[in-house]
Parts: sequence; structure tokens; C-alpha cells
Amino acid sequence: MDAAPLIDSLFSDGRMLEIPWSIDYFSVLVGVLTGALFACDRRLDIVGTVASGLLTAYGGGITRDLLMQSHGVYFTSDPNLILICVALCFFVFYFRGLFRHLEATVFFADALSVGLFALAGASKAFECGYGVVMTVIFGAITSVGGGALRDMSVGETPGIFQSSNFYAVAGLGGSAAFTLLAFLQAPLVIAGIVCVFVVFSLRYWSVYFDWKTTSDPVLSQHLRSGAGKMGRSLKSVGQRALRFVSSVVAVFLHAGGTEKAMKAQRPKLSWRQRKGRGWSQAGRPEREAPSEEAPKPPDGGHEEPT
Amino acid sequence: MDAAPLIDSLFSDGRMLEIPWSIDYFSVLVGVLTGALFACDRRLDIVGTVASGLLTAYGGGITRDLLMQSHGVYFTSDPNLILICVALCFFVFYFRGLFRHLEATVFFADALSVGLFALAGASKAFECGYGVVMTVIFGAITSVGGGALRDMSVGETPGIFQSSNFYAVAGLGGSAAFTLLAFLQAPLVIAGIVCVFVVFSLRYWSVYFDWKTTSDPVLSQHLRSGAGKMGRSLKSVGQRALRFVSSVVAVFLHAGGTEKAMKAQRPKLSWRQRKGRGWSQAGRPEREAPSEEAPKPPDGGHEEPT
Amino acid sequence: MDAAPLIDSLFSDGRMLEIPWSIDYFSVLVGVLTGALFACDRRLDIVGTVASGLLTAYGGGITRDLLMQSHGVYFTSDPNLILICVALCFFVFYFRGLFRHLEATVFFADALSVGLFALAGASKAFECGYGVVMTVIFGAITSVGGGALRDMSVGETPGIFQSSNFYAVAGLGGSAAFTLLAFLQAPLVIAGIVCVFVVFSLRYWSVYFDWKTTSDPVLSQHLRSGAGKMGRSLKSVGQRALRFVSSVVAVFLHAGGTEKAMKAQRPKLSWRQRKGRGWSQAGRPEREAPSEEAPKPPDGGHEEPT
Repeated sequence: MDAAPLIDSLFSDGRMLEIPWSIDYFSVLVGVLTGALFACDRRLDIVGTVASGLLTAYGGGITRDLLMQSHGVYFTSDPNLILICVALCFFVFYFRGLFRHLEATVFFADALSVGLFALAGASKAFECGYGVVMTVIFGAITSVGGGALRDMSVGETPGIFQSSNFYAVAGLGGSAAFTLLAFLQAPLVIAGIVCVFVVFSLRYWSVYFDWKTTSDPVLSQHLRSGAGKMGRSLKSVGQRALRFVSSVVAVFLHAGGTEKAMKAQRPKLSWRQRKGRGWSQAGRPEREAPSEEAPKPPDGGHEEPT
Repeated sequence: MDAAPLIDSLFSDGRMLEIPWSIDYFSVLVGVLTGALFACDRRLDIVGTVASGLLTAYGGGITRDLLMQSHGVYFTSDPNLILICVALCFFVFYFRGLFRHLEATVFFADALSVGLFALAGASKAFECGYGVVMTVIFGAITSVGGGALRDMSVGETPGIFQSSNFYAVAGLGGSAAFTLLAFLQAPLVIAGIVCVFVVFSLRYWSVYFDWKTTSDPVLSQHLRSGAGKMGRSLKSVGQRALRFVSSVVAVFLHAGGTEKAMKAQRPKLSWRQRKGRGWSQAGRPEREAPSEEAPKPPDGGHEEPT
Repeated sequence: MDAAPLIDSLFSDGRMLEIPWSIDYFSVLVGVLTGALFACDRRLDIVGTVASGLLTAYGGGITRDLLMQSHGVYFTSDPNLILICVALCFFVFYFRGLFRHLEATVFFADALSVGLFALAGASKAFECGYGVVMTVIFGAITSVGGGALRDMSVGETPGIFQSSNFYAVAGLGGSAAFTLLAFLQAPLVIAGIVCVFVVFSLRYWSVYFDWKTTSDPVLSQHLRSGAGKMGRSLKSVGQRALRFVSSVVAVFLHAGGTEKAMKAQRPKLSWRQRKGRGWSQAGRPEREAPSEEAPKPPDGGHEEPT
């Protein structure tokens, strides 16, 4: 590889960042590696290993490209890279034991790779003329979308959606840093380096200092005691609005008596157990209130099929 | 908000329905609210809450826009709305206790929101020149696609796919009502109002009267006694066709004896436990036949990895 | 149906394969059938049955069309076929008992259908000017993507990702056969027939001879004894690279001492249990090493929400 054009392209001052193919290849291959290791962990076969590897590496970019609709799909642009990815998946599948001793190396490579994905997503959105908000969002989607899709593809809740060390937060932070600098007219090379650095640092610090996102915010706990009172007054307002809507609706639906009938019926019909989008959520917290730490029942709130 | 241009735009008789932004905002924000409450219910962290909220609100529209391929993606068209959505997700995440007492309000808002999503999906398909069937389908996908994607994203079977009060049925009904009126040259404003009204009524009635979709149709039970006889005769036809195909195929594959060999082998190889798309389905009903009410075994028909 | 134009179109020597609509209809309807039987198996309601049927039949094609971005979406091109599919879903839902005795017929129809889907995917990619690699990939995605999406939509790990008789392998084989012949300038009709034949044969033989993909490759087992040694030497290289990266990084992050601090901390912080993409994979094999056959713990490596 000749370094001169690479450096030239890095420091050209156009408003378009040419990421050298070697950097693209690195981030994609690390994505494939982590995806394939994930598949081996779940004891998938070679088909699942290849699919999981490709999904992890390309999933975020595919999501970005589909949402952009007319700027090409990166996945289809470089068939040679796909061949290398497939070969890597085969290697990981058959020699999985080798990676048992490379934990920390994989961790660092992955943190770097997420940073490069955030850069790739944000810089493409910036070039395509999206605004600040969409640039940040596209960067974040590209950086962690692949991992999330991989988790979903085997029926698990994505790790980034759960209480964990920073991962999506790191991707979002790097994406925001790139966007800020890019829209402030900083050279894109600088913005890109800062982006990768921010992602890597956030990810590293989060593991080093054991920072975690929480699923049970302190604020919520503090406010819980006051929530009943405030909730009740809100409920009163809600009920009044509801009563008005209901009575208007009831005229059309079945001529009055709605609110009363609903109230009378509620114990019998056990509304809270109803399956349905808005309803089941709304009904949940009250049901769970008596014991906050109680494990979720195995039926997961689903009704038994009748 | 000035009412005059809003009313003007509502009653302009063009073949294009201008939905005021305030209505769009309402339906998206209610979608975000239900998605975020769902995430709190599953104890996701803030990343999961924002992702779940956005997916619920925009998922149906994104699916519609991707299938249309060249009419823009609504999700990327209004970054300000996304910022408001994210703020709402943070509010729900930290003040989830407040919504504990607003069950009924959330239920009504959600029913209204589904109606507005059905309208948004069907009217965009109508404007883009799709026919009756696709307009109805796009309306239904837009109305309930977000909730289904949200359920899938945390590894659950979507609630709308299971025995439950009408939800997808309501979205489909409203979408069909809009399409019927729109193709009958009714003013689109009227069609839109009817659409929302039909969705809201179906959803409300379904909960009020406890109407549910079934997963075990009565027709099937009635016919079960007769099924054996009819099934056996069909099987006989099927077996004959199969025998013919097999013998033709066998000539190419390994020179005869197929059918016999397969029969001889079947007990040993336990075909019914084979994993595979067509096969596992086909094998299922017979396996389940002895006890119709028996709970599904925990292995879910998957083979143990060997 | 008049046979003459059909045969004419089959043997026209253009570089474009006109697949007769009857063949398209057959493969889509068989896909719908297997999807609807799958839904009945999981006790979904009629909404889930229709969604599962359509997803199985069209999912692969939709994935292909979205990745191609500007060559139309097959799903939206033929509303009449969708109506027939929905009708078939209703039939399967209410008369599911009839299919209990048609196992083998469904198996053969499904194998044929997968072959035709592989052909449809590969031939469209070939016509659109994609190269060898992408043509093979698009063929494979189209042939088995629908089944995989259907499995994911109900929160299961796709069957094709697990140790099983050939399914994705068959689709891939047929797709590769078509691509090879097409790029060698063979008449596309011949390539198409070979494609379907290869898929059908691979699927059939795989069940007949009980060939299965494995999730625990023999190679890996043989090499396991040697893995420790090789792994340790690789680890040593990895650690050295890591130490270099770390010390460079540490200068920026918190002025030295990184590697040492990390090592000191590891037992206390229990890095291996950390949730996170790269980390959890990397950490896994070592944890599992003591008992290779031990069943996966029920927590699936997820941390308890705190």
C-alpha cells in the first residue's frame, strides 16, 4: 500500500471525507469477527455463523443506506470484501478455540471498529446533505445497528437495550462529536479522528470505571413516593378528559352510559390483563407495584391462547 | 395555530389529503409514548427506551416507505419531531411512575393514534397511485407495523399475531374503509374521518365487548372429526403424486428404490423430528394430534444441537 | 394456459430469463402454505397466520429488492397474487387438519419452491448486472430469507442457522450453479433448470442420507488440544500489540498505568461477565471450557438487570 495518496486524500480539504479502503476493511472484518464469535457462542452452524458475521458487520450500514433510499448500499458495493468476510467466518467457525485467549485484543479491536462505523455513518450522512440531527442519528445507527440486528436475529433482546457498559452511548457520543466539528467547518479528518477517539475512550472508560446505563433510574425511585399524589392529580385530569372524550364517543358508539359501564365492567373483564399495545403497557406498572424486585413471570404478560 | 388554512386544506377537493402537522405529531408522539412504556415494562435502559419509542412510532411508516422505494422516508423528513420524541422518551424513562394511573387515557390515545397511522399509510399509498389491494395493505402495515417491529426487537412474538382484542383487525378495517371511499371518489377528508372513526370504534368495541381473534378456529374443531377421512383420501392422492415425482426424481438421483427405501427408513430416522422449513411444519400436526391441549414442549420443536 | 408462447419465451436466447407467471405463483403459494402451517403450529391467530404466510413467501424477495434499491419490489407488483395468498392463509387457518396427512407432499413442494426462489433471486440479480458474488448471494437470500425472517418474527433463532438438514446450503448450491452457468454464457433456461434441480437434489439427499450441518466442527475438536499452545503464543502476540496500543492510548486517557491497572482489576470486576458486543463473545469460550457439553445456563450470558 502506498502511503502518499492515502495521506493526500486524508488531508484534502474538500467537504467530503475519503476513508481509505484499508480502514473500511478493518472495521468490517472486526465486525465479522465479533459476529462470528457470537454465533459460535450460540452454537449456530456455519450458515448461522456466516449470516451472523455479515449481519454484524453490514447491518448498521444497510439500515442507514435503506433509510437514505437513494445513495447506494455499501453491502453490495464491494463483493471482494464479502468473500474475505465469508472466509473469516469459516476460519472462526473451525478455529474458534484460538480466540479463547484473545479476549482483550478482541475488545480493543471492537471498540475501535465501533468508532470507525460511527465515523462511516456520520460522514456519509454529512456528505449526503442531512442536517445535524439526522447526521448524529445515522452515525449512531451505523455504529451499533449491526450488533443490535444480530441479537434480534437469534431472538434475544439486543444487549445495547439493556443495562450494560456504554456501547450505543459511545457510538452516539462519537457521532455527535463528528457532527459538531463537521458543521463547525472543522477539517473532516480532524472530526473523524476525534469521532473515533471519543467512541474508543467512552467505551474503554465505561468498562474501566464500570460505568453502566441503568434500567431503574434513581430519579424515578426518588419520585416514586411523590408519584402517587402527582399521579392521582394527573389521573383526575386524565379521567376528566377521558370522561369528556368517552361521552362524545359514546353518542356515536352506543348512546351513552359508557364510562359507567366501563367502570362497572372493569373488575370482571380484568382490563389490566388485556393484550394490546397501549393497554398492556399502561396496565403494567400498577400490577408490578407491590413488589418492585419480583421476577417477571414466565408468561411474559402474554395471555394464554384460548 | 391558525385554524383557517387548516380547514381550507382539509376541504380542498384535490385528490391529495394534506394531513395537518399537528395530527401527524399527535400520532407519532402517542406511538413513542406507548413504545417507551413498553420498554420500561421490559426494564430496558435509556437506549432501549428511545429505540423502542422511535421504532413503535416510525416502524410502520418506515416499512411502508421502504416497500414503496422512491417516495421518501417520513422518518428522515422531520428531525425536529425526532428531537421531541427523544425528549418524550427521556421523560417517560425518568417519570414512568406518573403513567401508572393513566391506563385508560393511554388506551384511548393509542386507539386514536392507530387510526391516524392507518390514515397516513393508506392516504400516502393512494396518492402514490397504488391500487385498492396495496392501499389497504399499506394502511394496515403503517398502523400496526411499528408495534409489531417493537415486539420483535425484544425477541417476543408480536401481540397482534396472537389471540387478542382487535388491533391489527381495527387497523385493517379503517384502512379498508378509507380505500373504499377514496376509490369511490368520496372527498378524502370524509374518507379520512371515517377511517379513524372505524379504527377507534373497532378497537374500543373489541375491548368493551371482549371480542378476540382466535388461534383455534371453531370451524377447524368441527371439521376435525371429518378431517381424518378427507385427509386420508387427500393423502392417497398426494402419495400417488409423490410416488410419481419420486420415481422420476429417483432415476436421476440414485436409480430407483426411492419410495421403498424412504418408507423403510422412516422409523429409524424419525423424519418427523427433522428440522427444516417445510418438513417441520408438515410433521407437526400429526405429532400434536394425540393431545390437542397438551402444552408445547419447551424445546419448541428445535433439535438439540449435536 | 397456452403452451406455445411459454415455450417460446423459455427458449428465447436473450440474456434475460422470463419466468412464466405460473411458476412464480407456484413458488409463492407454496411459501405461503409453509408459512401459514408454521403459524398454526405456533398457535398464532389469523393475523399472525396471514403475516407469517406473506413473510415466508415474500420475505426473501423483499430483502433482495431492498438491497438492490432501484429495481422495483416484487411484493407490490402483483396485488392479485397477494389476494390469493391471503385466501390460502384463511384456508390453512380453518382447515389446518387437512395438512396433517400431507407431510411428504408439503416437503417436496417446499423443496421445489426453494429451488424456484433461488432461481428468481439469482436471475434478477444477473439481469440487473451484478457480478458473480452478489448474484450467488442474492439467490441464496431470496431462497431462504423468507423462512429466516418468519422464524425471527416470532422470536426464534432461524432454523437454517442451527444444526439441521441442508436448507440454506441447498439454496446456496443452486444459486451458485445458476450463476456459474449464466456467467459461462449457457442458455439461461438450462441454468435455471439446473439451479432448481441442484436445490431439490441437495435438499432431498440431505434428508435421505441424514446429512446435517454441524454446530461443533470436528476440526475444532481435533485442534482443541493444540489450541492452548497456539492460542497462548497468539495471545502473547496479541498481548504485546495490546500493550503497545494501550500504552499509546493511556497517554491520552489517563497518563499511564493502564495495562497494570486493568490486570489488577480484572478479578474484581469480573470482566468476563461484562455485557457488550466484543467482550461477551471473547469472554465466552474460556468460561465454557471446563465442561464442553454443559448445557447453556438459562441466563444466556445476559446480566441481571440491576
